[in-house]
Amino acid sequence: MQPDLLSGPQAAAVLTQFRTRSPLVHCMTNEVVQTFTANVLLALGASPAMVIEPDEAAQFARLADALLINIGTLTRERAGAMLAAIESANQAGRPWTLDPVAVGALDFRTGFAREALALRPAAIRGNASEILALAGERGGGRGVDSTQRAEAALSAARELAGRSGAVVAVTGEVDYVTDGERTLAVRGGDVLMTRVVGTGCALSAVVAACASLPGSQLENVAAGCWMMKRAGSLAVTRCAGPGSFTPAFLDALYQLNREACA
Amino acid sequence: MQPDLLSGPQAAAVLTQFRTRSPLVHCMTNEVVQTFTANVLLALGASPAMVIEPDEAAQFARLADALLINIGTLTRERAGAMLAAIESANQAGRPWTLDPVAVGALDFRTGFAREALALRPAAIRGNASEILALAGERGGGRGVDSTQRAEAALSAARELAGRSGAVVAVTGEVDYVTDGERTLAVRGGDVLMTRVVGTGCALSAVVAACASLPGSQLENVAAGCWMMKRAGSLAVTRCAGPGSFTPAFLDALYQLNREACA
Amino acid sequence: MQPDLLSGPQAAAVLTQFRTRSPLVHCMTNEVVQTFTANVLLALGASPAMVIEPDEAAQFARLADALLINIGTLTRERAGAMLAAIESANQAGRPWTLDPVAVGALDFRTGFAREALALRPAAIRGNASEILALAGERGGGRGVDSTQRAEAALSAARELAGRSGAVVAVTGEVDYVTDGERTLAVRGGDVLMTRVVGTGCALSAVVAACASLPGSQLENVAAGCWMMKRAGSLAVTRCAGPGSFTPAFLDALYQLNREACA
Repeated sequence: MQPDLLSGPQAAAVLTQFRTRSPLVHCMTNEVVQTFTANVLLALGASPAMVIEPDEAAQFARLADALLINIGTLTRERAGAMLAAIESANQAGRPWTLDPVAVGALDFRTGFAREALALRPAAIRGNASEILALAGERGGGRGVDSTQRAEAALSAARELAGRSGAVVAVTGEVDYVTDGERTLAVRGGDVLMTRVVGTGCALSAVVAACASLPGSQLENVAAGCWMMKRAGSLAVTRCAGPGSFTPAFLDALYQLNREACA
Repeated sequence: MQPDLLSGPQAAAVLTQFRTRSPLVHCMTNEVVQTFTANVLLALGASPAMVIEPDEAAQFARLADALLINIGTLTRERAGAMLAAIESANQAGRPWTLDPVAVGALDFRTGFAREALALRPAAIRGNASEILALAGERGGGRGVDSTQRAEAALSAARELAGRSGAVVAVTGEVDYVTDGERTLAVRGGDVLMTRVVGTGCALSAVVAACASLPGSQLENVAAGCWMMKRAGSLAVTRCAGPGSFTPAFLDALYQLNREACA
Repeated sequence: MQPDLLSGPQAAAVLTQFRTRSPLVHCMTNEVVQTFTANVLLALGASPAMVIEPDEAAQFARLADALLINIGTLTRERAGAMLAAIESANQAGRPWTLDPVAVGALDFRTGFAREALALRPAAIRGNASEILALAGERGGGRGVDSTQRAEAALSAARELAGRSGAVVAVTGEVDYVTDGERTLAVRGGDVLMTRVVGTGCALSAVVAACASLPGSQLENVAAGCWMMKRAGSLAVTRCAGPGSFTPAFLDALYQLNREACA
């Protein structure tokens, strides 16, 4: 079955919800991308907070609208805090999103990601290698980068969504978002985004925020992908390289409006 | 009693001291804002250093001119290192500054902040919700963001300053700096600064540096607030959103001079 | 013996190798500079990955092309993970690079750096105070900043290189790179680079990547210094201060080509 393209008006409706509700997002993410992740959420109008001590993480997961779990620089201590936060979010009925960075390539995080998967994330966001590995197939990543195109992981993403109950976003040159039944495609962005650390990780935080909005979770998550791709497309026309891309990208996220969705 | 407005010449005199002395600031701060904090201090002419291992933190707190304690991503291990550094700074007669991020909202850090408060910080910098909570009143923050205007915490700030011996800065649309007796107001800045992560946390690092300068601690801390607000006001006229704000803001801090104080 | 100046064509040849091979660099570095370090490596065409859990660090050090060990925010836990990664890199024949941040000023890291030195790094990159301290002489740093010019550490750098087997880069206004026998000098850059946190730490990551390339290790490491100095010289002409320097610098690294080497 061919994926549908997310429409501009669909994305615009989710963006309006995003700005109105300003979701409070509890980010448990890797050391490398925390600042950029927070700035992406702030530029879009959300409210990020990073809380990591195990007791506090459990306490805060109940207060926040959404929880992000990113395993990029996982440690044993952080893994315990993450599990406490997930359990707490689940009890409070808050959606949580998994970014399984480099899963499959390294053993400790692979075990953790499988364990977390059983705790029913609302959404999962990864590149093709990561989604393949999380679905139990050979992913073949290189460090944190995918060696596969998103298309190669599409059937694995559908299977993973069906089995886990999560909306799965496999992102790359084109992003595909699936609930196992229906699949939406999101185009845009630019290869320059792969030369800036954290664009994928920040997308996962946006996905986490979107998963807390009312309406179709499939469309909400796809709209999160759309916001990032649209801002990326705009920023790449206003920059001279990956350095000037970053401020232009945050400005574009801040300025995104209904008109940009047309 | 009405707060006085800090004057341009007062701020200029502190800025000159800041540049001349280039305080070495030991920053024990949260994971999200370390880079931005260091870049703010460097742009203003200070020398930042992040040292976190407990023995080293105690050793370095004696060597540095000032110590910053920010509890944004507090862990049990980091809390122990912070207490060791505070004790060491106190023994060596070095001023330390407390940024009680999200105090009141989360239990572990609230206990830590109260314990730290008894160790006599030279200065405290927080938003209204945080200052209210630290003073023992209901703050009502939302994650790391205040739900109150600075004015609402002014009497709590005065009471906290009188009781703790610290100069207390409660910051927001207008910043108020008080020693319990006298209060200075600092105007300027822009709401766009709330869409960039770490502006408040970096201000606390500047306050820590200022607290190591000679002269009136009340005026020194207010001048730190003034430097950040003045650079923010300049940067906001030279940017298109929160992304381009950050480089413009660091440039403005770097270029701040006597003329900008007029 | 007078140092030779690295020539443009020598640097260009290494840059071509760098871009072609896109080394996968395992960065175990300090909390403050991780984002900037990753962005510098990405701008130059390398593939950075930060992996820190002890078992994973040992596993990943075998998969990566190069390993960076930077002790800026060393903790006891991280020190153990670093030693595991170094041992693993050595077994797999992967070169590792040491950045001994603030060695000599603080006891715990000084002990660690001496222990690491015995594990035969391929390269060492530090400022004059750090190289003097690592070589066993009095360095006299101030926090993380050098109080000495690079020239003052040149004979210590030669001695350290001869004794350890590492290529040693002592960097400052002029960078000197030595294998104990031959020394190359690299000119360029700008003092503004000392007002941006992480330029030295990111250089160490570039040196780590360069040490994995074929050919003369002395020339490879000197070429890494050259790339950073050349991009710094270009960026400083396109910026208004340390804030706008950073995006201009990353753009310049991304755009570096054979012509820039002429």
